[in-house]
Amino acid sequence: MAKVAILMGSRSDLPVVKPAAEVLKKFGVQAEVRVISAHRTPDDAHAFAASAEKEGFEAIICAAGKAAHLGGVIAAYTVLPVIGLPVKTDMMGGLDSLLSIVQMPSGIPVATVGVNGGENAGLLALQILGVKYPEISAKLKEYKEQMAEKIRADDAALRAELGQN
Amino acid sequence: MAKVAILMGSRSDLPVVKPAAEVLKKFGVQAEVRVISAHRTPDDAHAFAASAEKEGFEAIICAAGKAAHLGGVIAAYTVLPVIGLPVKTDMMGGLDSLLSIVQMPSGIPVATVGVNGGENAGLLALQILGVKYPEISAKLKEYKEQMAEKIRADDAALRAELGQN
Amino acid sequence: MAKVAILMGSRSDLPVVKPAAEVLKKFGVQAEVRVISAHRTPDDAHAFAASAEKEGFEAIICAAGKAAHLGGVIAAYTVLPVIGLPVKTDMMGGLDSLLSIVQMPSGIPVATVGVNGGENAGLLALQILGVKYPEISAKLKEYKEQMAEKIRADDAALRAELGQN
Amino acid sequence: MAKVAILMGSRSDLPVVKPAAEVLKKFGVQAEVRVISAHRTPDDAHAFAASAEKEGFEAIICAAGKAAHLGGVIAAYTVLPVIGLPVKTDMMGGLDSLLSIVQMPSGIPVATVGVNGGENAGLLALQILGVKYPEISAKLKEYKEQMAEKIRADDAALRAELGQN
Amino acid sequence: MAKVAILMGSRSDLPVVKPAAEVLKKFGVQAEVRVISAHRTPDDAHAFAASAEKEGFEAIICAAGKAAHLGGVIAAYTVLPVIGLPVKTDMMGGLDSLLSIVQMPSGIPVATVGVNGGENAGLLALQILGVKYPEISAKLKEYKEQMAEKIRADDAALRAELGQN
Amino acid sequence: MAKVAILMGSRSDLPVVKPAAEVLKKFGVQAEVRVISAHRTPDDAHAFAASAEKEGFEAIICAAGKAAHLGGVIAAYTVLPVIGLPVKTDMMGGLDSLLSIVQMPSGIPVATVGVNGGENAGLLALQILGVKYPEISAKLKEYKEQMAEKIRADDAALRAELGQN
Amino acid sequence: MAKVAILMGSRSDLPVVKPAAEVLKKFGVQAEVRVISAHRTPDDAHAFAASAEKEGFEAIICAAGKAAHLGGVIAAYTVLPVIGLPVKTDMMGGLDSLLSIVQMPSGIPVATVGVNGGENAGLLALQILGVKYPEISAKLKEYKEQMAEKIRADDAALRAELGQN
Amino acid sequence: MAKVAILMGSRSDLPVVKPAAEVLKKFGVQAEVRVISAHRTPDDAHAFAASAEKEGFEAIICAAGKAAHLGGVIAAYTVLPVIGLPVKTDMMGGLDSLLSIVQMPSGIPVATVGVNGGENAGLLALQILGVKYPEISAKLKEYKEQMAEKIRADDAALRAELGQN
Repeated sequence: MAKVAILMGSRSDLPVVKPAAEVLKKFGVQAEVRVISAHRTPDDAHAFAASAEKEGFEAIICAAGKAAHLGGVIAAYTVLPVIGLPVKTDMMGGLDSLLSIVQMPSGIPVATVGVNGGENAGLLALQILGVKYPEISAKLKEYKEQMAEKIRADDAALRAELGQN
Repeated sequence: MAKVAILMGSRSDLPVVKPAAEVLKKFGVQAEVRVISAHRTPDDAHAFAASAEKEGFEAIICAAGKAAHLGGVIAAYTVLPVIGLPVKTDMMGGLDSLLSIVQMPSGIPVATVGVNGGENAGLLALQILGVKYPEISAKLKEYKEQMAEKIRADDAALRAELGQN
Repeated sequence: MAKVAILMGSRSDLPVVKPAAEVLKKFGVQAEVRVISAHRTPDDAHAFAASAEKEGFEAIICAAGKAAHLGGVIAAYTVLPVIGLPVKTDMMGGLDSLLSIVQMPSGIPVATVGVNGGENAGLLALQILGVKYPEISAKLKEYKEQMAEKIRADDAALRAELGQN
Repeated sequence: MAKVAILMGSRSDLPVVKPAAEVLKKFGVQAEVRVISAHRTPDDAHAFAASAEKEGFEAIICAAGKAAHLGGVIAAYTVLPVIGLPVKTDMMGGLDSLLSIVQMPSGIPVATVGVNGGENAGLLALQILGVKYPEISAKLKEYKEQMAEKIRADDAALRAELGQN
Repeated sequence: MAKVAILMGSRSDLPVVKPAAEVLKKFGVQAEVRVISAHRTPDDAHAFAASAEKEGFEAIICAAGKAAHLGGVIAAYTVLPVIGLPVKTDMMGGLDSLLSIVQMPSGIPVATVGVNGGENAGLLALQILGVKYPEISAKLKEYKEQMAEKIRADDAALRAELGQN
Repeated sequence: MAKVAILMGSRSDLPVVKPAAEVLKKFGVQAEVRVISAHRTPDDAHAFAASAEKEGFEAIICAAGKAAHLGGVIAAYTVLPVIGLPVKTDMMGGLDSLLSIVQMPSGIPVATVGVNGGENAGLLALQILGVKYPEISAKLKEYKEQMAEKIRADDAALRAELGQN
Repeated sequence: MAKVAILMGSRSDLPVVKPAAEVLKKFGVQAEVRVISAHRTPDDAHAFAASAEKEGFEAIICAAGKAAHLGGVIAAYTVLPVIGLPVKTDMMGGLDSLLSIVQMPSGIPVATVGVNGGENAGLLALQILGVKYPEISAKLKEYKEQMAEKIRADDAALRAELGQN
Repeated sequence: MAKVAILMGSRSDLPVVKPAAEVLKKFGVQAEVRVISAHRTPDDAHAFAASAEKEGFEAIICAAGKAAHLGGVIAAYTVLPVIGLPVKTDMMGGLDSLLSIVQMPSGIPVATVGVNGGENAGLLALQILGVKYPEISAKLKEYKEQMAEKIRADDAALRAELGQN
């Protein structure tokens, strides 16, 4: 069973991180959720990252806000794909978190999703796993179709509501 | 042999895209470079994305600037991981490109790297492939070590230059 | 009877879109309101845009938020005027939506109005129709005069309230 | 023959405005280019706008930079569609011009294109005219196809250059 | 008795404008408060500005939000000092209003105060009047001293509260 | 003869300040140009501001860049109108200078003009003086008319150049 | 006993400043909290800064919002380390405060912490004192360890809660 | 002899870092300049920070650009004061670097100076050392006086040049 780590810099980031865990679970992928701080428990971050591959993780989601260094610090110690999830802050709607994560220097990429984009962080992890696991790829196609159906149902309901045939 | 597509919205984006192609080549991964526009050749974008998986691609890098829709448009038609590469523009240093790529709505992630981060786009593709192909993962570890050596050499040279022992 | 399409990327955009529909109705123009997503139902977006002219639409309003690609995707498939309506988001007050819509590359313009500017999207559609239909142009002039009267009444009321003669 | 006005707040905006005039000319539409300032010649702006419709203009492009009020001032006096063309400035890459133009209050829309988007301003005028004049609409379709061909040629040339078959 | 005009683009700006009127009143200066829109009642704006000097006004405060053109439009028709008061909006905390007001082109300055800075707009008008009227200048000095006393009282109270002698 | 002070925080700001001095001179107003730093010579700033009124100054222009405190520091010690002139910097095109000057707290306004708006700073000083000195006000009206003539001449030249009658 | 001053420009900044005072107290450092305004009581600011060293202060924290000049004004009169604490405002989440504080010209640094970063302002003062006082340095190491334990406890609790062993 | 470390994330940051080293040298403080990357040599960063105090360093300057994590990573491993020096980038003039450094989470402050503020980073280190070493504090006072003299000389020269007495 494929395994993804979801790290957050502070327990208060849990609501942002939950949709990532939920979508992974829905796809039958194990999500290990952890509170690890790049600045307050740097040794734990180091230890986690350095052993992540051996522990069987195949992608790592890192959620953090403000000067959000967690993704970069983890990426420094592993070649697993690291997904950066910027947490919305009071400072310009999370622009600080976003820039701190996405603008990584050459050599150490962090795959960044949108501010508070928990579900997308989970889906990106699944797309990455889907390259290796055809059954995940297949489920993603179904999921895509369900999203389309949902939009079409919304469209039909709205048209009915507005008296458009 | 693993295969990655590199799409750019306009030929003028080539200098930004080149480092991605080069790093892929260095790792023995085939990079197919294409000019495909989300707005000017939408049918080609659609066709490419819809058949990319069947054509053997395992990740797609999309470089675009300004209202940079290419990554989103490709991601709409495939479950392969799509890497968004924002091209620097005159408008606020590429902030327009960055926000247009990273702020994707729930359901359709684009794995975004920094503005003009061509090499990182290529390395992220390699990290994604590395989940499946151990030999790529192994090469990434070497690459990481070489980068460290490069920094250490710079450090030693500078210290010598400045007369620090 | 002139006909305008109003597309939104998600049903949740309805409150932003409503003032557009209402002002069109007030002018006797048919507004067809639809939920169509550039990313979740790209084929529907394509199909709608490609047939919009034949279906009798003469302008298309596209409301979307965050990485707001709907306007661009529709404009890729039609030569009808496409009006982009950026939806306010938590990220910098909708600056992400605005830049994603207005900064279109050369060749594919999207006529952008202000963030959450639903009424203005509708009025712009009417101004475009007014070029062809003199009766709409005439009604716009009346509307302009009514707005002026409203401001003058506000001014008079305030002056009275403040005891300015 | 259809007629479009192109106003600029200062003669120095001419390079930004030229692509608009050129694309209109290419489509056989008369472009009258004028230097009129919202702040330095407000009476001329007023007079122009108030008589534009009677003079046979069917759309007005207004280019301006910094606190770019020209579009709004013109739109205050006419119900013709007004296209706002923000000129790049040293201040944040033209963000000042863009916000001054696009964020119009309810009731007076200005159809805004991207910063320095001269060609798009012209094309948007043509799309607006195309609603009324089928021959312009037809030429826009051809133009769209030529743009696609240009992209495809760029793609083919690049693939050849890179030795991709 | 000196006289200052306070214009707002919309009645909803009244709370922002009130502190300006109040401080003027406190100084014995007549404040005439008006609702006049640059875009919806441009002729009234023109008429007001063109006759303001003759009517005995010696400064004009213009409050407006979003694409805030009122100050510029008024300044186009008078050589009286025009004070621009940017109203906070949802878009980046009023940055749109601020840039639309302060970034005036060479030749037509608008004296801009901070976002929602109603009291400062009034005080700036008083400082301008103070150049001509020594009694206003004298009162401003008292006001300055009262502000200082207020701060000193706050300081003393806080120190007492915190048990700092 | 009326007298205006022009202070700059650093000699390198001279090119930004020069147009202010020149326009004052053109109007027969004495401009005293000084290098005084809020941070490096705070006592000189204090001394200058505290005696400015007695020295016969009637307005003070303060040019500064980055964390531009000069205007605020001068305004703290005088009730003369203080005009803030933000100097363009590498940081976001002078947005740092602009916000540091315009966002003054309640009680101490600084009349801010646009980034690098030297001429406008001078003209604003003249408008302030014009409230007291009718001859300056009269000259400002002429200047306004000359600006209009300049625009009209540009317009005529361009129309001739482009073969528009 | 070491002594640190905490100045705020307005009493309303107290909630932002409190965590600084509390952390200093927790470390046995005396915190003198004052309301002193750069603009409303400039002489008090001057007097305080000029005598701070003689009064036994070893660092000065300055909290201010908007055009936040307090840190710079204090730093102009002392060589003690000045810590700038930007207060969140409605304008872009405190970006105005931050830039007004951090972008100091060469020669007069202000050690800036994050927006509303009261605790960090206090901790930075403690780190500065720690260079001189080994017992403070020792306590900081304990504090660091306690923060780490807090994160580890959060991590353990969350893992238990989620049923991860 | 007091000792300060100056770390940069990449050798290309040397020009930004040099003024810091020079000012320290001028004050007789030893500056050890190093190239150490938070992401490429994280173990070296860790090792350096963990032993810095024992090695006799009393402050650490960290220069970095883009997603500038170096300051935070070093601060995670030491209680010495860490000074963050944001390097200007193409992305919004270094706003990305600034926000990545200054917006540190509670518990781990980084004393941030302005973008490319090398000299100020050095001076801040000296002010911190000055708390402990009276001779450094004394020299800082002289330096402050020299800066003032430099401004006064500039002022006198300019006044002479402009023919002001």
